[in-house]
Amino acid sequence: MSDQTGGGSHRAAPMHTDPEDVPLLTALSALADPVRIQLVRELAASDDWTRNCGSFDVPVGKAALSHHFTVLRGAGLVEQRDRGPRRVNRLRREEFDARFPGLLALLLRADDGREEPGP
Amino acid sequence: MSDQTGGGSHRAAPMHTDPEDVPLLTALSALADPVRIQLVRELAASDDWTRNCGSFDVPVGKAALSHHFTVLRGAGLVEQRDRGPRRVNRLRREEFDARFPGLLALLLRADDGREEPGP
Repeated sequence: MSDQTGGGSHRAAPMHTDPEDVPLLTALSALADPVRIQLVRELAASDDWTRNCGSFDVPVGKAALSHHFTVLRGAGLVEQRDRGPRRVNRLRREEFDARFPGLLALLLRADDGREEPGP
Repeated sequence: MSDQTGGGSHRAAPMHTDPEDVPLLTALSALADPVRIQLVRELAASDDWTRNCGSFDVPVGKAALSHHFTVLRGAGLVEQRDRGPRRVNRLRREEFDARFPGLLALLLRADDGREEPGP
């Protein structure tokens, strides 16, 4: 297989799922996780393509983080590109919102003080 | 402890969580399950208090079903009452919708043909 990233990365380009093709259960399962909620919230507060995977404030190791991003890509929530040694991200806000209207808005609204369950 | 159900049931009355007190993660986790999605959809299509727990078309045993209803009560989605030997249900549609606007609507909209992942 040829490397199609074009950025000199040794990794294969990340696979994506179009939000239009995402089943509801896949979307809900992707968002029903405190680490992924935090990743989506931080991405929403950042400009597109400005955040590389190591820049998020989440308490997980590299392998777990990679898994979380795979889940987010598979749910149509995140798009990734390799730029040299870095993999940068954007939230697929408009496309995901078109597929599941209001779901991201629930996730991104101001914290209303209810205590989340512990890990 | 006295039995407060008043219905002659041998069981303790079910515990409920007010939707206003439910964290987002709890709501998403409750709905990110194919059996619970089915239970909520069937309840939404039925009049309040007309469905007892054994009346749903889901492929799980009694213990698993009881667990699913416990999760739904804990997420503020379902209210249950004991009526004699039967435990009957209603979807807390208005209260849940006030807490998480649009979330139930996503769950209840017509199936759009995208394939859900297998169990």
